This record gives sequence, structure tokens and C-alpha cells, in this order.
Amino acid sequence: MDYKLEFITRLFQKTSKKKIEHYVLTRLWHKLDNYDIKMVPQQYVFRTVNDYALTDVFFPQFKLHVEVNEPAHYKDNERIERDIKRNNQIKRNTSHEIRIIDCRENIEGIHKQIDNVVNLITNKLNDQKNDDTFKPWDPDKEFSFEYWKKQGMISANNDINFRTIDDICMLFDVDPNRIKRGYLRKGGIAHPNSNNIHLWWPSTKKRSGWINKYDDNTGDIFESHQNPDKNKEHLENIINTDQSRIIFLQNKDMLGLKSYKFLGVYQLDQDESSQKQKLVWKRVSLTFNLDELTW
Amino acid sequence: MDYKLEFITRLFQKTSKKKIEHYVLTRLWHKLDNYDIKMVPQQYVFRTVNDYALTDVFFPQFKLHVEVNEPAHYKDNERIERDIKRNNQIKRNTSHEIRIIDCRENIEGIHKQIDNVVNLITNKLNDQKNDDTFKPWDPDKEFSFEYWKKQGMISANNDINFRTIDDICMLFDVDPNRIKRGYLRKGGIAHPNSNNIHLWWPSTKKRSGWINKYDDNTGDIFESHQNPDKNKEHLENIINTDQSRIIFLQNKDMLGLKSYKFLGVYQLDQDESSQKQKLVWKRVSLTFNLDELTW
Repeated sequence: MDYKLEFITRLFQKTSKKKIEHYVLTRLWHKLDNYDIKMVPQQYVFRTVNDYALTDVFFPQFKLHVEVNEPAHYKDNERIERDIKRNNQIKRNTSHEIRIIDCRENIEGIHKQIDNVVNLITNKLNDQKNDDTFKPWDPDKEFSFEYWKKQGMISANNDINFRTIDDICMLFDVDPNRIKRGYLRKGGIAHPNSNNIHLWWPSTKKRSGWINKYDDNTGDIFESHQNPDKNKEHLENIINTDQSRIIFLQNKDMLGLKSYKFLGVYQLDQDESSQKQKLVWKRVSLTFNLDELTW
Repeated sequence: MDYKLEFITRLFQKTSKKKIEHYVLTRLWHKLDNYDIKMVPQQYVFRTVNDYALTDVFFPQFKLHVEVNEPAHYKDNERIERDIKRNNQIKRNTSHEIRIIDCRENIEGIHKQIDNVVNLITNKLNDQKNDDTFKPWDPDKEFSFEYWKKQGMISANNDINFRTIDDICMLFDVDPNRIKRGYLRKGGIAHPNSNNIHLWWPSTKKRSGWINKYDDNTGDIFESHQNPDKNKEHLENIINTDQSRIIFLQNKDMLGLKSYKFLGVYQLDQDESSQKQKLVWKRVSLTFNLDELTW
């Protein structure tokens, strides 16, 4: 089976718990009916510094998010206003668009709203094709560090997954041999051109006592060691540095294969870290400029 | 939310375990894009007396089954030949059509096959509309005994679910008061115009010691009592009669509501019953003619 079919059928499976959201997602895909368009579920979008929102469906090529609001979203005014505020904030602070599917309507009404999104995407697609800026969905490229190196920029909105730690190293011109320790691999390494920027590929599996937790609602990462002395030592070593981390979370990709997903650029929340006695990493950017080392 | 949306979104959820089958099913629905067309999963189809096959997707209005063959179907010649034999048998013995989606192909190939099925259905739909024989999917009718009474015929292929035992009674002109026992209901009753035909609405939940099991692969029903004496007595009472049973299985419908699903006309397998020491009911027909009391 080819990669895209495998990707999209697994995406359908993964999203089948919320039945209306799943219905909308399947309809968007089949109505667009275009293998060149990528669709990803559950995507982060920037709200304010240290605050991100998760949207239901995202079309990275068009920077378009689709929120599927099941009837519960409209239960009380507080929730309605919270949703409006959040969506306005996203629109104001990013170049992204958000479209809402209001599922209080009947099947005809929901279909009409989906048709509108499909038309919007089709128009954007045609515009990009006319401008010669359209980049067809190409999974092979997404997995290739050469491709991203050429782009000069990585963004968590592009759903970047690398297959190996070596690929991460190559992206940043780090000699992969430098992270080898016998049969093992180091957990991270400083950027070759900046001591303040660390490349880190944490696993959420416990390893040699290290415990990393990822909160996929906020995007925060919590780093600690099960041995209190070692934990304290590590905390004290790091807490007063102004280290930034470029983080690739080890996870399983849509196909269930081991991969390293780019999460963004992170910095330490010093107050929360000393309060919780573990390193609390907060995302400060979804993107990283590979040439200028900025975000 | 309206009934059809609830039905189809639940159908998507229920079928999400087999990812390619699920993908094909969602695509068929969205590509047809017609609320008047009903689609049901997992439908029985007649092969020979006492032998039925379960197909993946069924369009009752067009008597069209769609089989989604994941690559495993083609693993060995034995399986391939078994599939061909089965499908030929179905075609020969019924007025139904079967279309196969061969999922060894890539995404373009699978889409093309689905397009062909969509075209076939669209042509059939147009033919029926021209002949004025098209009956749009109408859930209200399906739940109404008056509707089926007017048709003069019930068929398990029409996915008939009644909400109450009273509805079953009314369909056969049985006074619902005749099945009341205080607050309880009898488990079945003879047809008012034929002592050999029994109306039966078994539950697969154990009740007052009665145990009914439904094999949803073969469609067989096994009836017994946990008390060996009572079981023996019941078996001996029934085994030598030539009773036929019109069976409505108590179950949960697509929306998770309690309902009584018409399974077909059943007769006893006397040999298997005496061998297993429980009543083994085998389906002899998927349809029953309400006026002529034939199948």
C-alpha cells in the first residue's frame, strides 16, 4: 500500500472517536479528492507567547485550520465567548486562518459548511498554482533533512518527522559520530554554531532514570531524574543558563513507525522549574531559522 | 442532530477497525453524496439453503453489495478460489450484484474502483427514477409497521428494526394485549393465521433461565434453558414439530437504541438440535410474505 493511503487511512482510524469531527474530516478529504493536499489532525497554533491552541484539522499548505464544534461547544455563553476570543487571538497573532464547522446544524447544513471550506481551499490552491508557489504534499521530502536544509527553516506546522537521530544531526551540520557513545546515542548536543542552543531528542520512555513528560495540550515538556540527588544537580546546572532547546520528540508517526517529530524551540520556565523541582520547558516558537539561528 | 447524520456517523465509527474497508465506505458515502441512498455495513446474502455470506457494504435500494478485499484476500490461491466461488454462488442464487474493491492497488487504483461503483449506483438510481421505482431512504418508514404492512413483504436485506414488541404484533395483526403477562411480555406467539408459524423476539440476554445465542457469522440461533430438565422438556416439545419461526432479534440499532431486528424465517435443524441438546434454528429465508405467509 502506498504511503499516502496508509497515512490517510490511519488518520481516519485515529480520529474515529469523536464521530462528528471524524465525519467532517473524512468528507473534507474525499471532497477535496486531491492527493497533493495534506491534511493533519490536532495541530498547534500560536496564540500568545507561551500559549498555544490545538485545532482539529489543519491544512499546512494553506495555513488553514478547521475547527469542528460539536453542539456542546455552544452549551453556555462562557464557552462561546472563550471560543471566539481564542479564534480571534489566533487570527490576530498568526497568518493562519480558522474556519468553524457548527455542528448544531442538520446534515444539509453541515455539508454546506464543508463545501464552503472545500471551495476556499480550492481557490487557495488555484491561486498558489497561478503564482507557482504550490508545494504538493510529498512525504519523501518531509522525511528528508536535505529538503528542510534547502528550505532554511523548519516549522512544527509542517509536521516534520525524521526517521533517525542521524537525520537531525545532518540537518544542523553536526557530525553524527559526535553523538555516538559505543552502541548508545547521546540524548542531545549543543548546536555547532551556538552554545546556547541545544538540539534535544527526548523520549517519553524512562531511560537510565531520566523521565520526560510531554503535555500534548500545552506542548510543555517536563524533564527530571528519578534519583533526587541527580535530579537536583541537573536542575541546578541548567536552571540559570539561558539555554534554548530545539526539540524533536521521539514518537510514533501516523504509520506507527518510530520517528522524531519537530515540536519547536523551547526555553526554561525558571519559576515553575524551581517550584516543581523539575525542568519545565515551554515552547517559545513553532519555527526555527536554520541559517540565522533565530525564531 | 438528525437521524441520518447520527446513523452514518455511527456507521463510520463502527467500521473504523478495518482501515481500508472503512476508507472505502467513507469514500462511497461522500462521493455518492445523496441523503436518499442508504448504505449498511455487514449484510447477509443468500448463497444456498442454510448458507449465507456476510458482505462488507450493502446498498439495499440497488441490491448491490460491495466487498472490500484487503491484500490478505489474495494471499493464496485457495482463498482466491473460495472468494470467486462464493461470489458466483451469490450472483447465481440471488438477484443481487457484488462488486469487489481490490485493495492491492495503490490509492489511485482504489479510487478508480470506487468511482466505478459510484457510477454504477448513479446509473441504477437514474434508471429507478425514470421508472418511478426509486424509494428514497426514509428512516421513519423503516421503523413503521404500517409501512411494511403496506409493502406486504419484509426482508432482512431492508434492515428492518422495530422499536417495540407491540410494533411486531401490529405487523402480523396480533392484538398486543395477547402477549402481556402483567408487566411482562411473552417471548413469542403463534401467527394468528397459522399455528406452524411462530413470531419470536429473542433476547441474547439470559432471562428466567432461557439462554439464546446468535451466531452473527452463520445467522444461526441456539435456544436452551439452564435447567437441564426444563431444557430437555422444551427440546422434546419442539423438536418434532415443523414449526417455522419469524425472528426479530432484540439488539441495539445503529443509534444504540433498543430495537428488534428482522433476521428472517427460521426452521429447526433437528439433527444438530438433538446432538447439541439445544434448539438449533437455521435461517431458511431472508424474506417473508405477510399476505401469503410464504417465504
